[in-house]
Amino acid sequence: LTLAGTPLGEIGERELVRRIRERIPAGPGVRVGAGDDAAAVEAGPVVLLTADSLVEGVHFRRDTAPARLLGRKALSVNLSDVAAMGGVGRHALVSLCLPPEIELGWVDSLFDGLLERAAEAGVSIVGGNVARSRDTVVDVALLGEVQTPLLRSGAQPGDAVVVTGALGAAAEGVDLLARGARLDEDGELVATGLWTESSAPAVRECLRAQLDPHPPLALACALAERGLAHAAMDVSDGLSVDLAEVCRQSGVAARVEGGAVPVAPAVASLERARGGDALLLALHGGEDYELLLAVDPHRLGELEALAGVWGVPVCRIGEFFASDPAVFIRDGVGERALPPGGHDHFRVAGTEGRPR
Amino acid sequence: LTLAGTPLGEIGERELVRRIRERIPAGPGVRVGAGDDAAAVEAGPVVLLTADSLVEGVHFRRDTAPARLLGRKALSVNLSDVAAMGGVGRHALVSLCLPPEIELGWVDSLFDGLLERAAEAGVSIVGGNVARSRDTVVDVALLGEVQTPLLRSGAQPGDAVVVTGALGAAAEGVDLLARGARLDEDGELVATGLWTESSAPAVRECLRAQLDPHPPLALACALAERGLAHAAMDVSDGLSVDLAEVCRQSGVAARVEGGAVPVAPAVASLERARGGDALLLALHGGEDYELLLAVDPHRLGELEALAGVWGVPVCRIGEFFASDPAVFIRDGVGERALPPGGHDHFRVAGTEGRPR
Repeated sequence: LTLAGTPLGEIGERELVRRIRERIPAGPGVRVGAGDDAAAVEAGPVVLLTADSLVEGVHFRRDTAPARLLGRKALSVNLSDVAAMGGVGRHALVSLCLPPEIELGWVDSLFDGLLERAAEAGVSIVGGNVARSRDTVVDVALLGEVQTPLLRSGAQPGDAVVVTGALGAAAEGVDLLARGARLDEDGELVATGLWTESSAPAVRECLRAQLDPHPPLALACALAERGLAHAAMDVSDGLSVDLAEVCRQSGVAARVEGGAVPVAPAVASLERARGGDALLLALHGGEDYELLLAVDPHRLGELEALAGVWGVPVCRIGEFFASDPAVFIRDGVGERALPPGGHDHFRVAGTEGRPR
Repeated sequence: LTLAGTPLGEIGERELVRRIRERIPAGPGVRVGAGDDAAAVEAGPVVLLTADSLVEGVHFRRDTAPARLLGRKALSVNLSDVAAMGGVGRHALVSLCLPPEIELGWVDSLFDGLLERAAEAGVSIVGGNVARSRDTVVDVALLGEVQTPLLRSGAQPGDAVVVTGALGAAAEGVDLLARGARLDEDGELVATGLWTESSAPAVRECLRAQLDPHPPLALACALAERGLAHAAMDVSDGLSVDLAEVCRQSGVAARVEGGAVPVAPAVASLERARGGDALLLALHGGEDYELLLAVDPHRLGELEALAGVWGVPVCRIGEFFASDPAVFIRDGVGERALPPGGHDHFRVAGTEGRPR
């Protein structure tokens, strides 16, 4: 790739678009792919639609997020939304805002990641657009298929509050990036920052959670097909914020057992070393892209068996109960309200001020 | 609206999203609208997908584009793409990148325009997202319905080159904005800039073409249903660029009669007054959002009759012929190649350098 170091300002929009189009393979169900006024794809009878943007300086920094992993994440955050509806991603549009000084190689790496993640997930990239801007923005719109949408509003009193995977690692990853830890384009650890070599496995795990999240896509679809959850939402803004949203939409309250929240072991070990509070990151950190579920307690065994098939841990962390929408947490000290502590894009006061 | 002057940084993301959601009405075919992980909509069996962004400093300036008209245009440019495929827009996602200093009233006006245009076009807004950024970006993804997609690649030797409406006004509008002419939020002329009051009607027409384009949506759908065009594309990058693209995808050449190109009368009068070349704007200006069609010459009468029903002028400007893809223009002087002169987002050299 002799042009890899050439800035987009020299390449030009048409050549850039031509190069991108050439790389996009044909996909199943795609009647007309990228290159016409719009894509034409097979769909229906009910489709899911979602869009999510990654904005430079807000969701990522170009000097700390390898472009290939950024491409993967741009698709993953949308796949997570479709999965949380019980669906499967099928067709994606990619809208890029790019500063003219960005080099072609960066865009090539971004598409390496987008195309790789699309292939893994069975998604076809069918179009999009590019425009010049000061900040880089990667905006993906995803069309998915679903039988019966799994909503945020179905939680019932008595349901168990369940989360998949473990929490807090993505937020820990933001701090690690700010302190010099780095992954390369392949997701391999190339710098531990302020940490010693003995922390390398934990540092790598948290950086990967932040830069290349893996939502439990297959499990989400399988549990939706079996009607194993009354409600579902992906944990993107932080457990405390997202659980409050399920409660608000379902018209119920929730009680979380502090000791039951699955803190990612890597976060526990890193926070223990510096005297931090790993549970706070798990409760409020955000970007975990795990599933938050409302499950009939009589069907928890069934859910655990299914999750075991996919190798995804599931954890009962509390219960929903009949009351005005609110979230409480109970620990050794007692029970109290759990204030939403996630990230707000516009308002800095009241959030942790993390450089997301 | 006592909060209209409050910056988003004080309002906060959640309150902003809550306010936006409250304004979005339910729509036909929408099973799950804004507010869950993804929207669920009825669709199929073949749907169109397209996305287009309007970026501050590239496609618009916040001090010259009234927010309501910007909202209208953000949807219109996508409706134009769906129309050029012979389809009808149905469901839209709106992704906003917004600087924290923007006032709530600006976003309210933007949504006034988006919702108004959506209602006019029978489109439901079903979701999206907001993020903080330095530059404002309005990115709309649109899902449409179609029977048989109308492609760019179907032009045949002997077909007439046809355009709808008149060209050049949107590009003239960019110059007018740069010289102080202004519309208000209602599309009324509030400043003529360097022009005298006698030019007001022409100035208004060109500003409206730039700030609030009206693609011939109904005609596009009707002609596609009747199979009246072999190929279609919307004129967004400029006739010279877009016709070259139809030729490239169809594997044919095209010859344009310079005297037949429908220059918008407002452009002709304004350019005449300052000694400019209105035809250059019509050939290369871009953003007209009219249709460029390849039509069997025996069916031109049928097309004209249909277009008459919708009150849309159609104009035969040349013909496609068997040759390597290329575009020629013929006028009193003779015939020569018509170089593509539209806008390139990244490369300034070789374009008119217009502040689009």
